[in-house]
Amino acid sequence: MAASPTATLLLSCPDQQGLVAKIANFIYANGGNIIHADHHTDFGAGLFLTRLEWQLEGFQLPRDLIRPAFGAIAQPLDAQWQIHFSDTVPRIAIWVTKQDHCLLDLLWRHQAKEFIAEIPLIMSNHERLGAIAQQFGIDYHVLPITAETKAVQEAQQLALLQRYNIDLVVLAKYMQVLTADLLAQAPPIINIHHSFLPAFAGAKPYHRAYNRGVKIIGATAHYATQDLDEGPIIEQDVVRVSHRDGVRDLIRKGKDLERVVLARAVRLHLQNRILVYGNRTVVFG
Amino acid sequence: MAASPTATLLLSCPDQQGLVAKIANFIYANGGNIIHADHHTDFGAGLFLTRLEWQLEGFQLPRDLIRPAFGAIAQPLDAQWQIHFSDTVPRIAIWVTKQDHCLLDLLWRHQAKEFIAEIPLIMSNHERLGAIAQQFGIDYHVLPITAETKAVQEAQQLALLQRYNIDLVVLAKYMQVLTADLLAQAPPIINIHHSFLPAFAGAKPYHRAYNRGVKIIGATAHYATQDLDEGPIIEQDVVRVSHRDGVRDLIRKGKDLERVVLARAVRLHLQNRILVYGNRTVVFG
Amino acid sequence: MAASPTATLLLSCPDQQGLVAKIANFIYANGGNIIHADHHTDFGAGLFLTRLEWQLEGFQLPRDLIRPAFGAIAQPLDAQWQIHFSDTVPRIAIWVTKQDHCLLDLLWRHQAKEFIAEIPLIMSNHERLGAIAQQFGIDYHVLPITAETKAVQEAQQLALLQRYNIDLVVLAKYMQVLTADLLAQAPPIINIHHSFLPAFAGAKPYHRAYNRGVKIIGATAHYATQDLDEGPIIEQDVVRVSHRDGVRDLIRKGKDLERVVLARAVRLHLQNRILVYGNRTVVFG
Amino acid sequence: MAASPTATLLLSCPDQQGLVAKIANFIYANGGNIIHADHHTDFGAGLFLTRLEWQLEGFQLPRDLIRPAFGAIAQPLDAQWQIHFSDTVPRIAIWVTKQDHCLLDLLWRHQAKEFIAEIPLIMSNHERLGAIAQQFGIDYHVLPITAETKAVQEAQQLALLQRYNIDLVVLAKYMQVLTADLLAQAPPIINIHHSFLPAFAGAKPYHRAYNRGVKIIGATAHYATQDLDEGPIIEQDVVRVSHRDGVRDLIRKGKDLERVVLARAVRLHLQNRILVYGNRTVVFG
Repeated sequence: MAASPTATLLLSCPDQQGLVAKIANFIYANGGNIIHADHHTDFGAGLFLTRLEWQLEGFQLPRDLIRPAFGAIAQPLDAQWQIHFSDTVPRIAIWVTKQDHCLLDLLWRHQAKEFIAEIPLIMSNHERLGAIAQQFGIDYHVLPITAETKAVQEAQQLALLQRYNIDLVVLAKYMQVLTADLLAQAPPIINIHHSFLPAFAGAKPYHRAYNRGVKIIGATAHYATQDLDEGPIIEQDVVRVSHRDGVRDLIRKGKDLERVVLARAVRLHLQNRILVYGNRTVVFG
Repeated sequence: MAASPTATLLLSCPDQQGLVAKIANFIYANGGNIIHADHHTDFGAGLFLTRLEWQLEGFQLPRDLIRPAFGAIAQPLDAQWQIHFSDTVPRIAIWVTKQDHCLLDLLWRHQAKEFIAEIPLIMSNHERLGAIAQQFGIDYHVLPITAETKAVQEAQQLALLQRYNIDLVVLAKYMQVLTADLLAQAPPIINIHHSFLPAFAGAKPYHRAYNRGVKIIGATAHYATQDLDEGPIIEQDVVRVSHRDGVRDLIRKGKDLERVVLARAVRLHLQNRILVYGNRTVVFG
Repeated sequence: MAASPTATLLLSCPDQQGLVAKIANFIYANGGNIIHADHHTDFGAGLFLTRLEWQLEGFQLPRDLIRPAFGAIAQPLDAQWQIHFSDTVPRIAIWVTKQDHCLLDLLWRHQAKEFIAEIPLIMSNHERLGAIAQQFGIDYHVLPITAETKAVQEAQQLALLQRYNIDLVVLAKYMQVLTADLLAQAPPIINIHHSFLPAFAGAKPYHRAYNRGVKIIGATAHYATQDLDEGPIIEQDVVRVSHRDGVRDLIRKGKDLERVVLARAVRLHLQNRILVYGNRTVVFG
Repeated sequence: MAASPTATLLLSCPDQQGLVAKIANFIYANGGNIIHADHHTDFGAGLFLTRLEWQLEGFQLPRDLIRPAFGAIAQPLDAQWQIHFSDTVPRIAIWVTKQDHCLLDLLWRHQAKEFIAEIPLIMSNHERLGAIAQQFGIDYHVLPITAETKAVQEAQQLALLQRYNIDLVVLAKYMQVLTADLLAQAPPIINIHHSFLPAFAGAKPYHRAYNRGVKIIGATAHYATQDLDEGPIIEQDVVRVSHRDGVRDLIRKGKDLERVVLARAVRLHLQNRILVYGNRTVVFG
């Protein structure tokens, strides 16, 4: 693991000759040392997608000129791109309702330094998990939501995201549908769905999995979009079940999946390893 | 593995006291030695489900009296039950269309003695796989099917099942929907579906899995019922895919799943380890 | 799930005719309703192994006569057996050193009611995890161990197990070898080893797995015995790694395995689903 | 999938600045279009490892000058490298003893066009599998091996590899130890070991796995080296087993693993996705 700060470029653009060379030359010409690079071409979509990480030590461009300088290269390529600096620590808000397993798991991993991030804010539509927030020294805001108050409360939520300077929202079993309005204005949002999507999208997936008699259940982490449970999938995992497992057992086994799948997705996002295009993701492993 | 022949009872009935004792006593009183027994209670359904296997050597009931004698015990229990003798070798018909991977796999396993069964018949709606049948010395019947000929051809299919004395039909990538009529008259039918049901039921599951951007694909073996892809699930398995996998890769990886999932399901059926109730299965492992 | 209290019998004995009937009759004759029963015959070892669970409501034998009455049946069978009552809640001691992930996981699961047990005691050879014990309201005893003090401290440990009435010890990353003496006097002890045993038994398994270049790592929960890392295996699980994973990544991924594998093993033990014979386990699923 | 021929570079060298740029420029300057590129830095070993694939259509260097031209770039980098052209089809020899499952699986996949390769030669120390070779129209050479004849027969084996122009040897359950001499002169050799290495290296792994009471078994494909079962691991996979599985069941389940793990390893090798360094592999996914 490189101790010195790094820059990470995520870029997608129409495929053409010389893309790797152009980007690598930009870094090399400025004295950067590439430590990870991964490129993918989606021939069907005609897209080139890449992730490059290089050491900033010895890089001759001043920090505030890196993005403008790269922009000059990216523009003729018709590219979509982001550059992240590893010493700019992202700030996470976790949204919950009443279930604590994903929240606790995220906080424990944060404490164990699995996530390079700050978690200054937990929001909920219920009081219940306030004690956990307090124990970890994190602000806890309760915004109960009804059909009538939804618009007002979402405005509050957005205001909090701004006030706390939030870069990523993690829905850790937040059992509310988000409006298109909120999604348009919020930073990226990762959700955990308690099924192997697209199977059992919607409500009560474990009950439906039990009734269908499946032999394997799953969990899915995805970016939240306007179409419920239809956003780009980041990570999935599964576990075997048998006729001996009732709905309660499915829920219990599923919780273990939800925790680990959500944590992996958050970690991949924080490491800038995910590129979304269309409704798909490239996850640079 | 017991070398001497065994009898296997599969039974389900409304739960009540003394069921294990009653059944075990029937076997013990007649000098049978139970070598496997597994019971399950589905409290929600109020059902007791069991599988018992005992050695026939030393069993004092003549073979042709075992079923009638047990019937007298089962009737007051309002039970559904079957008794199978391990030396009565079941006969399988395999139905295929054009893909050979599941067919070849089943035939190899049969040759390797993984299945205690005979395979006297392969049916197809295409000529293509006839050479394989010939190579393994198995009769191959071609019954092309169109909307107009379906009724006539299904009658032919049923006639062949009768003529060949078939106990189990295995749909090894047979790409035709079966009518309710045929299903009502045929022996049990196991189908392999190339997705992790209920995700991607219906046509072209790998294309749809690719488009949805899932990170895991699966295959499902189930008993065929009138509701396409809705029958009781016997076995499922999955494999990871990534953004580097195109549709062709999904198909290739999926084939490996289809082979092994179908083979496991056939083996479980042949060992009389599966009890169907409602739309669910108990698989006695 | 049955709400009323149940009794669970775990029994192994030399195989002979009529075992299922004899045991089932004992329960039926006394008015018990069997809700789970699973039998296994190990033909190589000539052993019959069984687990039966029945409802105590309506069972006509007084609680304190059940074991003596069954003993009369078991003795001529030369059986080893235990009977557990579901309303006698087992008491767990957790032993730790400095790592908190397994400890926290066990305590959360206990809080979430995944374990029917009490956890009155945490022991460690270090101070570090005392704050966690305090937060969960559990007594924390520190017994530092050196080569010189080992004998004295183990005597202390045994005394504490007695004083707290402990039924099960869970080594949640307790990095000390236990002596034969302690093992002989302690209740059952479950250990988690951070490798896919028997691969990488002993120290620093993740470093050795990295150096060997394996593509999959694992974790193993087993009963502790005198032969380090050689005890009967209860549960194992694995996860894929790649060349991109350094030793730290292996450790991080391994922690997730250790947590879940240890938790499953503890749960199986608490549900009296494990029978040890020789150096093997039967796990009644 | 690109239809036009491609070149693939596999390279490893001491890490330094500008490596990606230098290599990408070589391709770009000659009019090549990179379709896949993946780089990895092993910081511990101080090594840069890369795989690049580019389209040869439009590439301005004549085919026979590509290697010399790249050599001029590689030499100052102190690099180890290979360049493969996708239209130069590699030739495989399969070595077997008596078991047919891996052989049949490889031949079926070859027929199904999963491998871009030719398989002109099967060698064995037994007659048994000759009929399969004949059925697939492949030459079959029998070279029985005893302690006395080993040296002579290995010379024969090497002569056959030369005569058939073999690029890759696949040991598909070839139950003979290879000498250092043969290994030094033969092309790359892939072996399948029927255990999750390093567990149960050596003989009779399934019997030993059964005796140890493991809950998961595995298979490992690796390059053959002088140290038996110690070569660089390419691929591993696992499957769950239970107390109900006897040694025969382990063998049966293991066969399914062996087939698929060996096939994946062969495919990865044929796609030039594997870089060996030290005793480890980088597998560019």
